[in-house]
Amino acid sequence: MYKAKVNVTLRKSILDPKGKATHHALQNLGLNDVKEVRIGKLIELDIEAETEDEARKIADTACTQLLANEVMEDYTIQIENN
Amino acid sequence: MYKAKVNVTLRKSILDPKGKATHHALQNLGLNDVKEVRIGKLIELDIEAETEDEARKIADTACTQLLANEVMEDYTIQIENN
Repeated sequence: MYKAKVNVTLRKSILDPKGKATHHALQNLGLNDVKEVRIGKLIELDIEAETEDEARKIADTACTQLLANEVMEDYTIQIENN
Repeated sequence: MYKAKVNVTLRKSILDPKGKATHHALQNLGLNDVKEVRIGKLIELDIEAETEDEARKIADTACTQLLANEVMEDYTIQIENN
């Protein structure tokens, strides 16, 4: 069993309103040293596979078919052996 | 300038309906080797600080005061020097 940690983030060129709102809220709390906030998704998949390569392939298919919108988002996959 | 990568995940004991829905959607796509899905948040903070310790302290304050609900969620902070 492998665990795939998928990070999905908005591309740098895309405005991130959730991040902007969070940044504003942190400033209201007095945390003025925080200069930028961007918010993405962390998706953890438990994958039944023989090899790490196979697990990565399955995670990549999940990303392209469902988890990430490649027009607006980038994703990275990190595989851990459980 | 430091970059703090904050992962906020639901505690294991808390039901994750978004994850369940995603799991179901992946099964409908034929990805039956995915056995569990859990969804969390990835928050990237750009922090102006003198030292890594100071940056971590600011990120930790942001988590406890705003970003994570410690009753239901766990968080991890990873600091990178930019």
